[in-house]
Amino acid sequence: MAKQKKLKLGAIIHGVGGNPAAWRHPDVPSDASVNFNYYKEQALSAQAGKFDLVFIADGLYITEKSIPHFLNRFEPITILSALAGVTSNIGLVGTLSTSYSEPFTVARQFSSLDHISGGRAGWNLVTSPLEGSAKNYSKEGHPSHPERYKIADEYLEVTKGLWDSWEDDAFIRDKESGVFFDPEKLHALEHKGEFFSVEGPLNIARSKQGQPVIFQAGSSDDGKDLAGKGADAVFTGHGNVEDAKKFYADVKKKAIEYGRSPDDVLIFPGIGPIVGRTEEEAERKYQEIASLVTIENALNYLGRFFEHHDFSQYPLDEPFPDLGDLGANSFRSGTDKIKQDAKEHHLTLREVALGALTPRGNFIGTPEKIADLVQQWFEEEAADGFIIATGVPSGLTDFVELVVPILQERGIYRSEYESDTLRGNLGLSIPENRYVKKKVTTEV
Amino acid sequence: MAKQKKLKLGAIIHGVGGNPAAWRHPDVPSDASVNFNYYKEQALSAQAGKFDLVFIADGLYITEKSIPHFLNRFEPITILSALAGVTSNIGLVGTLSTSYSEPFTVARQFSSLDHISGGRAGWNLVTSPLEGSAKNYSKEGHPSHPERYKIADEYLEVTKGLWDSWEDDAFIRDKESGVFFDPEKLHALEHKGEFFSVEGPLNIARSKQGQPVIFQAGSSDDGKDLAGKGADAVFTGHGNVEDAKKFYADVKKKAIEYGRSPDDVLIFPGIGPIVGRTEEEAERKYQEIASLVTIENALNYLGRFFEHHDFSQYPLDEPFPDLGDLGANSFRSGTDKIKQDAKEHHLTLREVALGALTPRGNFIGTPEKIADLVQQWFEEEAADGFIIATGVPSGLTDFVELVVPILQERGIYRSEYESDTLRGNLGLSIPENRYVKKKVTTEV
Repeated sequence: MAKQKKLKLGAIIHGVGGNPAAWRHPDVPSDASVNFNYYKEQALSAQAGKFDLVFIADGLYITEKSIPHFLNRFEPITILSALAGVTSNIGLVGTLSTSYSEPFTVARQFSSLDHISGGRAGWNLVTSPLEGSAKNYSKEGHPSHPERYKIADEYLEVTKGLWDSWEDDAFIRDKESGVFFDPEKLHALEHKGEFFSVEGPLNIARSKQGQPVIFQAGSSDDGKDLAGKGADAVFTGHGNVEDAKKFYADVKKKAIEYGRSPDDVLIFPGIGPIVGRTEEEAERKYQEIASLVTIENALNYLGRFFEHHDFSQYPLDEPFPDLGDLGANSFRSGTDKIKQDAKEHHLTLREVALGALTPRGNFIGTPEKIADLVQQWFEEEAADGFIIATGVPSGLTDFVELVVPILQERGIYRSEYESDTLRGNLGLSIPENRYVKKKVTTEV
Repeated sequence: MAKQKKLKLGAIIHGVGGNPAAWRHPDVPSDASVNFNYYKEQALSAQAGKFDLVFIADGLYITEKSIPHFLNRFEPITILSALAGVTSNIGLVGTLSTSYSEPFTVARQFSSLDHISGGRAGWNLVTSPLEGSAKNYSKEGHPSHPERYKIADEYLEVTKGLWDSWEDDAFIRDKESGVFFDPEKLHALEHKGEFFSVEGPLNIARSKQGQPVIFQAGSSDDGKDLAGKGADAVFTGHGNVEDAKKFYADVKKKAIEYGRSPDDVLIFPGIGPIVGRTEEEAERKYQEIASLVTIENALNYLGRFFEHHDFSQYPLDEPFPDLGDLGANSFRSGTDKIKQDAKEHHLTLREVALGALTPRGNFIGTPEKIADLVQQWFEEEAADGFIIATGVPSGLTDFVELVVPILQERGIYRSEYESDTLRGNLGLSIPENRYVKKKVTTEV
C-alpha cells in the first residue's frame, strides 16, 4: 500500500503580530518582535506540535505609519540561526528579497543555516513589494513588477548553481594521506547573465538536504510562474476554499508545464485560526482581538498595501475610492483583490479597512470545526498544508493542544517527525547536484 | 581607588584552522569548519575561561588552492547567531566586508544579533583583501586599497547613523492608551554620500549596548586611521613586543587626534599560544603541528597573500623572489612585512613559506612563561588584550585551564564577568544616540 500523503503545517512567528493592535492584547509581550525568548517558546510550541516549519516574514522599508511589528523586529537570517541552536526537528524558513541582496551572500547564509541546523533551512524568496526599499539601498528606483521577477528568476538560478559547487562526496578528509578534497568534485559556476556575474565556487558544501527548501510568496501570475518553475513550496492566502482550489490547480499545472511533478511544489495557504472550546469562547476571543483596533490603525494598515497611500482623506462610509493603478507595482495580488472585493460587494472604505485588518476568516470555532475545515481544504486539493498565523501567542498553543490531536487521530497528520531534515518531513526529494546529473547524462 | 584596568581576551574559532595541515592533527574533527557542536564547545570553553569574546573570520573568494578551512566554512552572521542562543555572557564578533555588502542589511543583521544575544554583538569591519571577491559579486573589479577605505569610512558612518534611528526610550508600549512609540524619537538618516544613499530609519531599535562593538582588522596606515577614527577595537598581529608597542602607540595617537580617549580603542594582537606543562611538552606539541605541513601546502598558503600567485615556479632554496608591487592591493600590511623580512634576514623561499605557515611565535612554553609574556605585553602597552588563535581545539582548553588561573591569581584578569554585554566587559561606554546628543547641544 502506498504511504498516504500527510498534511503539512508551519507557524509564522510574527512578534507583536500582523494586526497593528494585537500588541495591546493581555497575552502578547509588547516587546515580542525583539524578544528572543518569545521566538524560542513559539518555535518550541510548534515543534511540540510536530510542525514542519516556523516561518519568519520580512520587509525593508518603514515609515512612522508602519505597523508596530514592522517598526522594530528581528532580521530573519539572525533569528532563524539563533533558533537553529535551540530546536531539533522543526524547519526554519525566512523571507529574503532578491531585489536588494547579492546571491553569493544569500546562498552562503542559507547554506550555513542549513549546516548549522542539520538540514532544516528554507528560503522564502520575495521580490520586495515596498517601493521605498530602493531608498534604503542606494538605488535610483524600485524595479517594476515584471523586472523584479526577471531578476528573481536569474537570482534563483545563480543561487541553486552555487549550492551545487561541491558534489556530495567532494570532501575526503583522509588524515593519513593528507587529501582533504577531490578537486574534480569542485565546480565554479562561471555565471554571466543579464543581472548577475558570479564566478563561484561557493565556500560551503552542500548540506544534508542538498539544498535549502525554496518557498515563494507572491501570488500574482509572475509569482505562480516562478513557483511552478523553481520553488518547492508556496505561501499564499485565500478567503475561501474555491479560490484556494483554483490557485492550487494553477500552480500544480505550472509545475507540470515546467516538466516537474505536481508533488514537487507544495501549497500552503496562510490561516489565522481562533480556537475555542465552544463556539462562544472562539467568538469571544475574536472580538477581544478585533476590539483593540481603531479606524486610524485600519486606514494606516490599508495604506501600506497601496504604497503608503493616505486613506484618511476619503469619507469613511462612502464606497471604496477609485485608486486607478495605485498598488499595481507593489503587493499586486493583494491590491487587485481588495479593489475587486470592494467593487463586487459594494463595500465602504470603513468596511474594507477594518476587514483588511482583522479578517474574520473561516477558521474560527471549536477544535472539531477547525479540524473539519483543515481536512476539507487538504482533501479537496486546496492545500498541501497550512501556515498558521495567530494574532496572540496562545493562538498557536491552542491549535497545538486542541486541533493537532484531532488531526493526528484522523490519520491525516504525523504523530512523530519522519525525518530530521525539512525536505524529509515535507516529503520533498533531495535535488540532484547539477554536475553529477550532467556527468550521468553524458556517460549514457 | 581607581579600578585597575583588566586584560581582555578573545578566542578565534576557526574550524580546521588557519594552518592548512592542522585538520590532519588527531585532536581536530576534520569537518570542524562546518560542525556546529565544535563551534559550540569552543565558545563554551572560552566562556568558561571568562573570555570577552569569540571571533569568526571570513573571506569571499576561494579557488581550489585555498586552505581547507576557507573552502567550506560557516558564514559569520549565521554561526554567531546560532552561538547567541547557546551562550550567556561571551561576546560574539564576526568579520563582514564593507566592499561587498549593503549597510542597511549589515546594520540590521548586527543589531538583530545584538538584540538576540542581549547586547553581545561585535562587527569586525574589513574591506576584503582578495581581488577575486569582485567576481562573486557582479562587479567590474576590486576597488583599490585607498578606495576601499574611503568606502568603508562612509559605510561605517551610515551604519552608525542607522543604529541611532530610534532613541533609547522611543518605545512606550502602553497597552492602556494604545501608544506604541513616540514619533519624535524616531529619526530617518537621509544619508546621501559619495558611495551610499540611505534614507532609513532602521527597522530595529537600539539594543542594551547601544551599538554593536566595532572591530577593525586592517593594520595598514589606512586601517590605523579608520581604527583611530571610529573603531572600538583592533585585531592585529605582531612578531615581537617592540613592533606591537609601536602599533599600539600609533593607534592610540590616532584616536586622540580624532578627539577620542586612548581608552576608546582597544588593541588585540592575535597570538597562537602552545602551552605545555613543561617546555618539552610545549615543544613536542609545536612539532606535532609543524610536521603535518608539506612544502606544497606552504607555497599555496603563501600564494594566497599575493593574489594567488604561483610560487612553485621559483627555486625553493634561493633568495625570496622580487615580486614588485604584487600583493600591494591585497593584504598590504602582511605582504609588505613578508617582503621586508625576507630582504632583511636573507631568507629563502622555503624559509619564508614554512615560516608564514607555522610561525613559531613567542608564546610557546609552560603556563608560567606564557602568563609572563601576556602580562609583559599588557603592562608595557603592547596590548589591551589578545585574540587567542590555537591550531587545535585542545590549545584553547589548555590556555583556559592552565594559563587563565595564573592571570587571575596575579589580579590582571577577571574571575567573573563584570557585565552581560560585550561593551560592559570591555569597559567601553555606550555610544550616545546622535540625535539625543544634538538635542542636548542645541538646548544649551
